[in-house]
Amino acid sequence: MASTATFVAKSPNFPHPIPNASRPQLPASLRLALPRHLSIAVAGRRSSVAPRAAAASCSLIEPDGGRLVGLVAPEGPAREALRREAAGCPQIRLSRIDLEWVHVLSEGWASPLGGFMREAEFLQTLHFNCLRLGDGSVVNMSLPIVLAIDDAQKRAIGDRRKVALVDTRHKPVAILSDIEIYKHNKEERIARTWGTTAPGLPYVEEAITKAGNWLIGGDLEVIERIKYNDGLDQYRLSPAELREEFSRRDADAVFAFQLRNPVHNGHALLMTDTRRHLLEMGYRNPVLLLHPLGGYTKADDVPLHWRMKQHEKVLEDGVLNPETTVVAIFPSPMHYAGPTEVQWHAKSRINAGANFYIVGRDPAGMSHPIEKRDLYDADHGKKVLGMAPGLERLNILPFKVAAYDKKQQKMAFFDPSKPQDFLFISGTKMRTLAKNREDPPDGFMCPGGWKVLVDYYDSVTPQETNRSREAVPA
Amino acid sequence: MASTATFVAKSPNFPHPIPNASRPQLPASLRLALPRHLSIAVAGRRSSVAPRAAAASCSLIEPDGGRLVGLVAPEGPAREALRREAAGCPQIRLSRIDLEWVHVLSEGWASPLGGFMREAEFLQTLHFNCLRLGDGSVVNMSLPIVLAIDDAQKRAIGDRRKVALVDTRHKPVAILSDIEIYKHNKEERIARTWGTTAPGLPYVEEAITKAGNWLIGGDLEVIERIKYNDGLDQYRLSPAELREEFSRRDADAVFAFQLRNPVHNGHALLMTDTRRHLLEMGYRNPVLLLHPLGGYTKADDVPLHWRMKQHEKVLEDGVLNPETTVVAIFPSPMHYAGPTEVQWHAKSRINAGANFYIVGRDPAGMSHPIEKRDLYDADHGKKVLGMAPGLERLNILPFKVAAYDKKQQKMAFFDPSKPQDFLFISGTKMRTLAKNREDPPDGFMCPGGWKVLVDYYDSVTPQETNRSREAVPA
Repeated sequence: MASTATFVAKSPNFPHPIPNASRPQLPASLRLALPRHLSIAVAGRRSSVAPRAAAASCSLIEPDGGRLVGLVAPEGPAREALRREAAGCPQIRLSRIDLEWVHVLSEGWASPLGGFMREAEFLQTLHFNCLRLGDGSVVNMSLPIVLAIDDAQKRAIGDRRKVALVDTRHKPVAILSDIEIYKHNKEERIARTWGTTAPGLPYVEEAITKAGNWLIGGDLEVIERIKYNDGLDQYRLSPAELREEFSRRDADAVFAFQLRNPVHNGHALLMTDTRRHLLEMGYRNPVLLLHPLGGYTKADDVPLHWRMKQHEKVLEDGVLNPETTVVAIFPSPMHYAGPTEVQWHAKSRINAGANFYIVGRDPAGMSHPIEKRDLYDADHGKKVLGMAPGLERLNILPFKVAAYDKKQQKMAFFDPSKPQDFLFISGTKMRTLAKNREDPPDGFMCPGGWKVLVDYYDSVTPQETNRSREAVPA
Repeated sequence: MASTATFVAKSPNFPHPIPNASRPQLPASLRLALPRHLSIAVAGRRSSVAPRAAAASCSLIEPDGGRLVGLVAPEGPAREALRREAAGCPQIRLSRIDLEWVHVLSEGWASPLGGFMREAEFLQTLHFNCLRLGDGSVVNMSLPIVLAIDDAQKRAIGDRRKVALVDTRHKPVAILSDIEIYKHNKEERIARTWGTTAPGLPYVEEAITKAGNWLIGGDLEVIERIKYNDGLDQYRLSPAELREEFSRRDADAVFAFQLRNPVHNGHALLMTDTRRHLLEMGYRNPVLLLHPLGGYTKADDVPLHWRMKQHEKVLEDGVLNPETTVVAIFPSPMHYAGPTEVQWHAKSRINAGANFYIVGRDPAGMSHPIEKRDLYDADHGKKVLGMAPGLERLNILPFKVAAYDKKQQKMAFFDPSKPQDFLFISGTKMRTLAKNREDPPDGFMCPGGWKVLVDYYDSVTPQETNRSREAVPA
């Protein structure tokens, strides 16, 4: 895939994790405070724009815990020492999803978390969706980031204090030290994370049901940067790299849009309109972080490399302004845990420098696995996000509903006073059209982007359509 | 039942809910600060004794939200006006458990909650186990205190803004105003509260499964004090009355012990030892709140009036010191929701003036309803309590394990260096002995208390033993 101006490729000279604290900071007195009337109304919370949000780009929103965690060993003797040490430790083989979590942890998306959760962090996550830090402050943490082991692995570890985490080819990836092994009560974990224990939850079936009955937490040190060698590594920018990019572009506001679906013109309208709105609020240069999720997704989602192709076409076709848009891959796997997961999607973007987060209808939602209804109330994600502990600094922007305006022949914000003018094109409808090689209405999606979707559905046989999966990388 | 010195009966002149804020407060500078070395180690939290804890009794721990909620209308014209207004409102008939929650809310055990939860409070409870107040502060709230209605009731309410809550005889009990009706997603509520959706959870079967598919929240005004006319109302002291009693006794520390089982000498040892410990810490007059739960309990628990008889005998036999012990009934129904519920048990006792809370092994736990194991990890309750948002002010005292010391022939703290000396007498074992009219080992429970238990099991036929229930009051 060709890199466009908007797809930020990594420079070889890109400095690796740069703690935000080391950046120059404007004295507080020089930061611009927005007038009070510019506060944004958010369901369940008074959300006023924090003064720091309007300051110069060198004061992007602080990472959770005040410092961006970076767990990759610097190149040189330290890295080699870690590699040698790993060779002498008991080994735990990582699944693809485990490796994605190592990736997430290593770059500080989960700052201030410094490794797989120990029991105190796991329990706080399950019960409170947040962690209390040593200084009494609270950061959001809604999804358990845990590593499961089975009885045999637990026995093999014995009373050792360190283990090596290895990939599917037994190559050491990381060391977990000062470990703590505790019970993996799967039923309780599932019930408290998803609000259901119904069979058929994709992440549960993929990563929990067959996993071991123990969890192992500890401090993580990663030997070298996680790569997947799938042609997309250049788009996997770390939070530190994204912060550098936002600074380079002189952004004074960053608004993040999480997605795991093809971009249509309704999304584009929303993002363009959000920038306009932020400019009206007094920001000088709001930058969009268009941030497709790149980790595990369920079988009937469009695979990452097809989505990236589609996003590229949308950018090429000028639907979004490359000058003010950064497209990068968010390495997290997907839980489909609705209101619980949307907090993770938002929190991790704070760590990447975003101070505005666009939340859609039924974020991270799906159909109930065994009942004929959505698993979550479509409004709960937005409501829970607006009340979540540790996310008070983040400005939540509720998604305005866009639909196809038949008169204007383009996507437009839905006007409830004339519903007859609008056509709602659901994901199911979009998939059916693309599978049948039919065209959507003019103006629904740019032709280049639509062609990618048609090509994708052409590439999978009908039987595969509902179970196509990302290839597991070497 | 005769009232003993320790069973605090209500005086007819007892002032009804007294906001704590109206009490004289020592200036902060005059409050005694404890030396730092007296801080108490708590799993997962540095818990130092708050300076206010050591101040004079006129500064008992503040209620959550700063003011004790009292929702019972004062006798006189206001009460009569409320009664007349109720007669003109749509009616919702309360179940026994609903009425217990009205009781709980009316006296401020759930301060600062002023009525059945609206959706914003319900969602915060389910996801975060706490509520954020208008000033940004956080109070603990782990159990949903909600009122369910069905489709027909929702239709009958229509667009009215107030409803009357009536008892089983259609007598108005309260008015709920500025109401909000929202969906009752039972599966999600159960999963997030209990960490399981397995069939057979007592509270779920009793109060949720058959309940309506809507929840109604609003501001509660209760016409008159809730009474059950079961001979025990005199022991149902409100938080305001308990605070008065602690002040009257000149308590400078209050330690609460929640229970729903007969008291044996191991409990007594623990409570006596706790007082000794608090005296050593520098408190002048620590007072015990022995606080049996009086609301709904599962069928195989010993019913309230038998437990109260048993507690009375224990006090009469001098196992606990009446001078420094207050026995009263906690009106809440029981969820058996382990780590989630223990937070409610602790939080409500803050509102009653307790600044120390004794937490046992597997608090509010039970067997898994369909698997052969305990539903919760026995240590999770203590750990979660020690980390719970909004409970930072409360000092958590972990229960020391007591067992029967065969050499000393009395209950003693378990000494792991000589396990052969100790006999553990489980609840099941105790029930079996009492049912068979066998005596426990000497020194396990005072003879008078044991006789009450034997009498109780005599009073129920074998078939009834596992389904005996509290009579529903008139």
